[in-house]
Order: sequence, then C-alpha cells, then structure tokens
Amino acid sequence: MRLASILRRRIVARPRVAARAVGAALATHDLSAAALAAVMLLGTSALCEDEEPGSVRPELPTVGLSEVRKHVSREKGIWVVYKRGVYDITEFCARHPGGTKILLAAGKSIEPFWQLFAAHHRADVYEMLEECRIGNLDEVGAAELAATAPPHSDAYANDPDRSPALRVNSTEPFNAEPPSELLMNDFVTPNDLFFVRNHLPVPPPVEDPSAWHLKICARGPSVCHHVSMDDLKRTFDKATVTATLQCAGNRRREMAGVKAVKGLSWDKTAIGTARWSGARLADVLRAHGVDDAMRHVQFEGRDADATGERYGASIPLATALDPRKDVLLAYEMNGRDIPRDHGHPLRVIVPGTVGARQVKYLDKIICANTESPSFWQTRDYKGFPPNVDYSTTDYWSRAGPSVQELPVQSAITEPAADTPVDVDDTITIRGYAWSGGGRGIVRVDVSLDDGHTWTQADLDPRATAQEYNRSWAWTPWELTVDVPDNATTLTLVCKAVDSSYNAQPESVAPIWNMRGILNNAYHRVTVHLLRPQTDDDDDEEEEEEEEDHFAHLASSSSTFSDRAPTRVAGRIATFPQKQQQQQQQQQQHTP
Amino acid sequence: MRLASILRRRIVARPRVAARAVGAALATHDLSAAALAAVMLLGTSALCEDEEPGSVRPELPTVGLSEVRKHVSREKGIWVVYKRGVYDITEFCARHPGGTKILLAAGKSIEPFWQLFAAHHRADVYEMLEECRIGNLDEVGAAELAATAPPHSDAYANDPDRSPALRVNSTEPFNAEPPSELLMNDFVTPNDLFFVRNHLPVPPPVEDPSAWHLKICARGPSVCHHVSMDDLKRTFDKATVTATLQCAGNRRREMAGVKAVKGLSWDKTAIGTARWSGARLADVLRAHGVDDAMRHVQFEGRDADATGERYGASIPLATALDPRKDVLLAYEMNGRDIPRDHGHPLRVIVPGTVGARQVKYLDKIICANTESPSFWQTRDYKGFPPNVDYSTTDYWSRAGPSVQELPVQSAITEPAADTPVDVDDTITIRGYAWSGGGRGIVRVDVSLDDGHTWTQADLDPRATAQEYNRSWAWTPWELTVDVPDNATTLTLVCKAVDSSYNAQPESVAPIWNMRGILNNAYHRVTVHLLRPQTDDDDDEEEEEEEEDHFAHLASSSSTFSDRAPTRVAGRIATFPQKQQQQQQQQQQHTP
Repeated sequence: MRLASILRRRIVARPRVAARAVGAALATHDLSAAALAAVMLLGTSALCEDEEPGSVRPELPTVGLSEVRKHVSREKGIWVVYKRGVYDITEFCARHPGGTKILLAAGKSIEPFWQLFAAHHRADVYEMLEECRIGNLDEVGAAELAATAPPHSDAYANDPDRSPALRVNSTEPFNAEPPSELLMNDFVTPNDLFFVRNHLPVPPPVEDPSAWHLKICARGPSVCHHVSMDDLKRTFDKATVTATLQCAGNRRREMAGVKAVKGLSWDKTAIGTARWSGARLADVLRAHGVDDAMRHVQFEGRDADATGERYGASIPLATALDPRKDVLLAYEMNGRDIPRDHGHPLRVIVPGTVGARQVKYLDKIICANTESPSFWQTRDYKGFPPNVDYSTTDYWSRAGPSVQELPVQSAITEPAADTPVDVDDTITIRGYAWSGGGRGIVRVDVSLDDGHTWTQADLDPRATAQEYNRSWAWTPWELTVDVPDNATTLTLVCKAVDSSYNAQPESVAPIWNMRGILNNAYHRVTVHLLRPQTDDDDDEEEEEEEEDHFAHLASSSSTFSDRAPTRVAGRIATFPQKQQQQQQQQQQHTP
Repeated sequence: MRLASILRRRIVARPRVAARAVGAALATHDLSAAALAAVMLLGTSALCEDEEPGSVRPELPTVGLSEVRKHVSREKGIWVVYKRGVYDITEFCARHPGGTKILLAAGKSIEPFWQLFAAHHRADVYEMLEECRIGNLDEVGAAELAATAPPHSDAYANDPDRSPALRVNSTEPFNAEPPSELLMNDFVTPNDLFFVRNHLPVPPPVEDPSAWHLKICARGPSVCHHVSMDDLKRTFDKATVTATLQCAGNRRREMAGVKAVKGLSWDKTAIGTARWSGARLADVLRAHGVDDAMRHVQFEGRDADATGERYGASIPLATALDPRKDVLLAYEMNGRDIPRDHGHPLRVIVPGTVGARQVKYLDKIICANTESPSFWQTRDYKGFPPNVDYSTTDYWSRAGPSVQELPVQSAITEPAADTPVDVDDTITIRGYAWSGGGRGIVRVDVSLDDGHTWTQADLDPRATAQEYNRSWAWTPWELTVDVPDNATTLTLVCKAVDSSYNAQPESVAPIWNMRGILNNAYHRVTVHLLRPQTDDDDDEEEEEEEEDHFAHLASSSSTFSDRAPTRVAGRIATFPQKQQQQQQQQQQHTP
C-alpha cells in the first residue's frame, strides 16, 4: 500500500478539500507532483475534530500488531503505529527531516520516540503522519502496546541547566553551540561554552560513584570485567591531552544552502577545545589482556532511547592501542569532573576523530571484530557521494565507511557574517583551523577579495608548538590587514593547509552529501564596513609591526600554554608573546 | 654591483646591439623592463668569437679568489666563477630555472656543477651568464682552481641503461616517467617502468657486497656502527610492503600552466607502486639502542655532487620507530635486488611519505635533534603560499615545513589528454588515486561535464582491502559510462576522497607554489571523440553489468593480490574478480 492509494484515500476522506490539483496529477500518474500538491493543500491546516491523530477511522481496514511487525524494510514496506493508527511510511522515510533515525521505529509504535523527540508534537507533523495512514490497529494490539509502553514520563526532566549564551539548535535532545564571537576568546573552550551534541536525554547523574562500574569485555560481549572509578584513577596513570572535538555536522547550515540536507542546522561553532584528563585506553585494555587480535573497540553509553537502545560507536582497535593516538577514558574536562552534558562521569576521548565516536556516559567497552552495531555507527555518520540523495534507489549501498578522522577545516569567527563592522584603515579577522588525525596546521590563507589574492594569517604559537602528527588541538589564527580604500563590502575567505599539505576544497557543491556532514569547504563571510567620520589616523608604526607578524612567529619559542588571547587597548587580541611585545611598544609611546 | 650597472656595461661592450629599448628603460630607472629588453635583444644570439664564455675581458676589473669567496649571501651578493669570468648572480638566482640549487655554487667555480647538470652547456645559458659578468679572475685564482678541480670526467658515465619506453624529463641527472597509457597496466609497476627521480649521478655499483657497510649513528654523527648487508639480511626479519612512491613534483606541468614554476616538467606519472622488501628500520634502530630521545632520523646517500655534498633527507624519528608506519631499509624491489636507478643496494622506504625522503644509495643513518642539513631538506621540498614567488623579499622565511606525508591525489591515465578517442556508446576512463600517511581511498568521483555532475568509479578491491591507516598502495580505478549522444569533445575530471574524508582542491591556482610541488587539484583531461560509422550496437546486458559495479565491489571479498588488470576481448581491462565474472558472462554468450 503505497503513496498513490494513500493519497486517493485521503482526498476521498476530505470532501471539503479542493483537491483538483492532486487529482489532476494522479490522473497523469505524476506521483511526486501529487504528493507535493497534497502536502501544499493539507500541510498547515489543523486536523478536524473528528480526525484526532491516531484515532480510529472506520473507513480503513483493521490490522494486527503481528502484521505491523513484519513491515520493517523498504522491500516489504515500513509501517509504524501511532495510538490506533497504522501508517506506511516507506516513501516518507526519504523526506523525514530527522534522516534515517525514523527507522528505529519500524514495525513499532512511534509514541515512545516522540516522547524523546518532542519536535514531533505539532499540527503539521500530525498532518504528514495521517497522509501515510493505511489502517487501524486492532484492539488486541492496542492493549498489548498499552501494557508494554514505557511509563509516560518527561524523558528530559533530568537534563542539566545550560548557559543561556548557547545558541540552541534543538531542545530535546539538547543541541547547542556557542556564539561565534565568543568561541576564540580562549585557546581552551570553557566547559559551559563548549558545544553540546546530545543524541538522547542526558542520563541521571551517578550519585554514588562507588556503586558505578565500567564494564570491559576484552573478547566479544560475553565476558566482562568491572572496573570502578577508583580503580581507573588509582591503577592507571592520569594523562592529560588538549584536544579539539568537532561535530561531523559542523557548518551543515552552509551545506544546506547548496541543496537540502537532513540534520540539525549547525553553524560554524560545533567545535571546541578542552584539556581532557583520564586513563589511557591503551593501558586499560592491555591490563585486561587485550592485544591486537581483534579489529574494533565498541563503546556503549548509558544514554538510551525509548526502547532501551543505547548510544554506541566504535573505533579501530589499532587506534585505541596506539600510544601515539592518545585515546583516553576521560573523567575530567578542563580540570573539573566532566559535566553532565559532556559525558559525566566518564567519556571516551579519541583525539583527531569525529565527535560522534567519543562516546559519553561510557558504560561498556567491547573488543570485537565488527564495528559497533548501534544505529549511529551502522546507519549514520558515513560519507555519501554528491550525486546520491534520499531519492536514490538503495542509497545505503552508496555509503562510504564510518567517519573516523576528520579532514582539514577552518572558519572565520570574527567578524560575524552579514553584520556591520567598524573599521578605520584595517580590519582584524580571526578564526580557527584544525585537522583530524593529529595533523597540525601549517598555514592559513585569508582573502579579502573572494579568493583572488591571499595573505597568510598569524598562527597561535601554542598550536604550532604541538608535536608532529599529535597536534590534537586547533590553531587559532588572526590577521590584521589594510582595507581597500573605497570598499563598503568585503567577502572574506579563509582556507587552511595541514601538515600532510591537504588543502580545503574551494566550494561546498562538490562535497555536498545528503547527511550534510564533513563540510570543510573554504569559509566565506561577507561583511559591511562602517567607517568613522573622523580624519584618518597615522599610526604607521603599528602597521609595520603587523607586517612583521610572520617572521616574529617563525622565530617564536613560546610553549603550548593555556594563556588566552585578550583584548588590548581596544584592539582585537593577539597571541600571548605578541601581546607582550605590543605592551612594550605601548609603554615606549606613553610619556 | 647589480643588474643596472651590469646592463649598462654589457650594452657599452656591444656597440652592434641596437640597444635603444634597453637604454630608454634604463633612463627611466625601469630595471625590470630594461632587463627584459636586454634579454630579448641578446637572448638567442650566439656569442661573438671574441667573447668565448669565461674568457678574459680587458675592460673589466680583476678579482681574486678570496674576494669571490666572500660573496655567498643575498646581502653581500652572490658571486660565481666560470673559467676566467667572475659573475654576480644575486639577481639572477630568482630567475634560475633550477631553483635555489644554484646557491650550491655560491663563492665557487660553477664548472664542476655544470659537468653534473649538462643542460647548462647551451648558447643561451652562456649569454645569460655573461649578462652577469662583473670581472676577470686573477691568474693566481685561475691556477688554484685548475689545481684543485675534480678530474674532468663524465660524471654520468656510470649511469645505467634505461627502458626506451620512459619519457625523459632530463638526462643529466636522469629523470623520467612512464607513458600514461602504460602506468595502470599493473597494480605493481614493473621496475623498468618505474619513474626515475635522480638528483645527482648514479653512484658506481657496489661490486663487492662483503666490503659494503651501512653506518648507523644512534646519537648524533660522532659514533657510528657498521652493519653489513649480510647482517641486515640475517639479523633482522625480512618485511615486504607494497607501497606507492610519488615525486613531490608530480603534475608540475599543470601547475606551470597557471604561472611559471621552477623544476622538471613532470606530467602525471611521477608515481609508481612496488613491493619493497628489507629490514624494518624500527628493528634496526632499536637493536642499536635508539629510543625516542631524539627527534629526527637523517639519511645520507652515496650519490654526491661535484663538491662531495651527498644527497640527504630526514624523517621524524617517531615515524621511523612506529611499527605501524612500516618504514623499511629495502634491498629488494618487486622481488629483485633494487636496481641502480632506484637505490642499489639499499634505500629507505617511508610509505605514505614524499619520494624525496626515501633516500637511495643509503650509506649512513644519523639520529639527531635536527632535520638533515642537506640542501634538499633545508632549502627544497617545502610548501610555499600562493602569493609568494622568487620576487618576494626574503621568500625563504615564508617556506612551510619540510614536506613529509602527501595529500590526497588522483589522475586520469586513460584516455590521454587531447588525443582522439574511439568510442561507441560508452567510454572507459581509468586512473589512480592515492593519499599519504596510509590513508586509503574511499571514493573516486568522475565527471564528464567538467565537474557539474559526478559518477563513482569502481575501485580496485586489492586497494580497498588494505588496512585502515596502513593503505600504502594506490587505488587503481575505472569507470565505463555512456557518452552523451551528440558529444564530440568531453572534459573528463576526477577527484578522490581519502579515509580521513579529505577531498582534492578544485583548481590549481589556490595551491600554486613557486616550487611547483604538491599539485593535487582535480585532474582534467579533454578528449575528442571519434565515433564508428557503423550502426549502434545493443549489448544492453553489458551495460547492466556496468551499472552494478558499485554493489558488486561493496560485497567483494577479494584479497590484496598482485594480479594485474588485463585487456579482455578488446575492452579496457577490469579488476581481477570482475574480469572472472565477465569471462563467465562471455562464456555464457559464446555457443
């Protein structure tokens, strides 16, 4: 029972809808046009009182729960239940704004999932659901579901408080990123400004750490050892790694500008850097007899969906065991217990790897010959070619391997896009650059003319001092350049080069993918310039100093400290040792 | 004594030259125009008989050798001697087609270097040299040089014979690459088709291996152990690694199309794959007490220039000691003793790293806290920004770090560019893709419309079966697609994605650099189509099989064998297990 018959039935059941456009499209077998017309006609109207979503509709056939449970694949059709309604969502799956996560509910009731993902409780969503209606669940099935349903609770009642400074992308589950202007104030991102990427409700806090145990299953899931937090802290050396985490969907908003994608509309700040402390995973695994006989390490979190399925992911075992990869079981973030939004009491830190594999609320570690069986490893966080979308037949066969290490990335954080910028003769541009796999940043090129000519930015020496192929933290960068005399608008562009001399792709279209991940194209920001009405200043000495940035940094011997850039005398900040130099210069000029 | 005065002097000394253009430019102090005009006027004319290059010119001052030796820097001027001529080449250095290698001769006679680099013995080179003439070497100096000059021998007399199939970029030193059409005939490149990149003459063969020793200096250059070839083979396990080597200058020719660069005009086949066998460098170093206390491993070859300076390079010690990096002291190439052009009897193999660090004719290994002091490590094989060229003041301060791991790369090897291609309804496109650091290739996208739309190529399963982050060998790829009905010309484009989801940059200009290295932009080939005059064929079954490539490869379980693609029934070759499938299909259709 597919879209065409559903549409016919809906139109018949709604005599007051002026369905001429739909009928005409159906008559010519133009199903996509019909579907579009139907959605346009029905989309925003409220349901009638006699059509409470999921209520019994006498004109439709009755279906048993066992029949529903058979429909869990594209071939047989994908059915779900909402209250007494049975729905064939096979065709709708491709249009689901949340991507393939809808398949978690295949053959089941969607009610527990909608408790988790509260965005569904909207009139237009009910309308779209009823578009897919094919029958009524029989009374036996309804009773069974009612008896086995999880208690109706607010799954997010346990979520922690968050900083009001965060820009919220979704509340349930909570996903948010810091404002662009605040991101680069610190080399290490403060915990409460660190982007939050939750897939599920935050699990309740561990009130009694002595009762909490991590399970370590060295050879498949069958035999597991229990390790307490005290064991982790006492038995294994505490290591600290300053590492940048980036969400696979960082900069998805730009990618969506090329062609629609699925997923949260992350801007450019789903990235942050912290000092993570904990036991080395390699030490813990080797202490439990793990060698390189198996291929993957699977991680399971305590965070679970309505059916009890937990968040999970895996990394190659070789990565976990490699001492130069610095994989941690981290219990501290920036010197404090890991906050609840970031994995309390324990999370995996896999430097240089996509955030999605750095499992929070860590509960279990399983060494195995297969990747994690979780939805997020097997059906999400994979790359797709630019010519494949949800309308592609069997698009899953076109998926690339699970994302692990990330490509070279950079973005402009200041000035912000499309905002007026006060300038006199110069403009200061700041941002971050980073690459996966420990590859450091060797250069950031900035253009004021949309990529025709380039100037090199100054790189934070705390970043460039990192070890070769273990450069886990980002590279803050900054450039102060003359503004062309008559410019009123500038298109700023940045691109970075990493230590393997990988460069960023120029534009989004050739790397577009239907999940909207892995956007590392040049970052472009258009700004409008506001000039002061006063006469031009003449501080040439400051300009000379700016021109000398590069040589200065090249000879720098600064260490990888955590001193944050700050603002000096109204100018946008510079890096620590440069700041000292400026202060000296200021002192010389102050009587 | 700089360009202006040299030019004036040259013009005065050549009354028959119609130097009006030069004079006019000089009068307005437009030195670059003057230089250009002078070169245009003088460039291709032969020297007069009274102006034998390097002969005494009475109108010029006399200079002693001690004075020449003081001029070895840009600040003091860079002087060289040729026969009795003294030359100030300070300004010319930036225009030297061979790049900064000219500095090797600073303060010295260039004659021994020109014996090595025979391309200099040309009339236009003599002309350019005389443009820089500032004086005559005194008789004492001339006698000293004659007494200390190396015997005038043909430094390249010992060079081995080579395959006539190679396309020669320079003969002395010998540099050559295989024809595009032959490169992908084999997963492993035959030794005699492997590109040759020699910086110097090939040293004489080791006639008595029992007398040959490798020197291993575990803590700086002072104390070295001697290891014989027998020791290497008996004491250390023999390891074999199939690894691709690529020259940093591969595809320089395309980069030169954007703006002139220095260096050999490599096309796209300065890349090859071989099975390298030898001792693991990590084993050898650890057996000699090397731990991670130092930072670099320096390698010295036996190949030397006229002054005895040997080819040398270094890699990070951490790379050398990491067992997962598979660094070898290789004595075999594809199961045979390493040929003389490729490093006989021993070379370093650093998989995933630029060819320049994989030192041939290996003589000495030094662990140290600094990179190799050789010219090729300190003054060459570094990345530069696109806005820096030889006219940039102090351009060396703008150099990036020494190239080690290479970025993701791909190229079309068939069809060749600008050649007519016989097609019926389809065209088959083949090529290679590869990335540094062991990152495998996860996808190759091919476009027939200059990048507007993309189709995925089939990847050789011997490549995709390689281990994660140890995928040292390239990925041959192939795509057979329908040709648009009315097309007479196609612009084919390919781009690859590696396992860290790094993508290639779209065009050359933003990655242009003055050394012309690291060109990994999309590869473009324009082909002209020749269509048969016969009526169209209708082998739809073959087309269906082509469409199913992707799914087929996804489920492949083939191993990383060395079976070479071959040609089947007039069609361009396919990968082993696909070939079997085709043969089966052919058998089914053959009565």
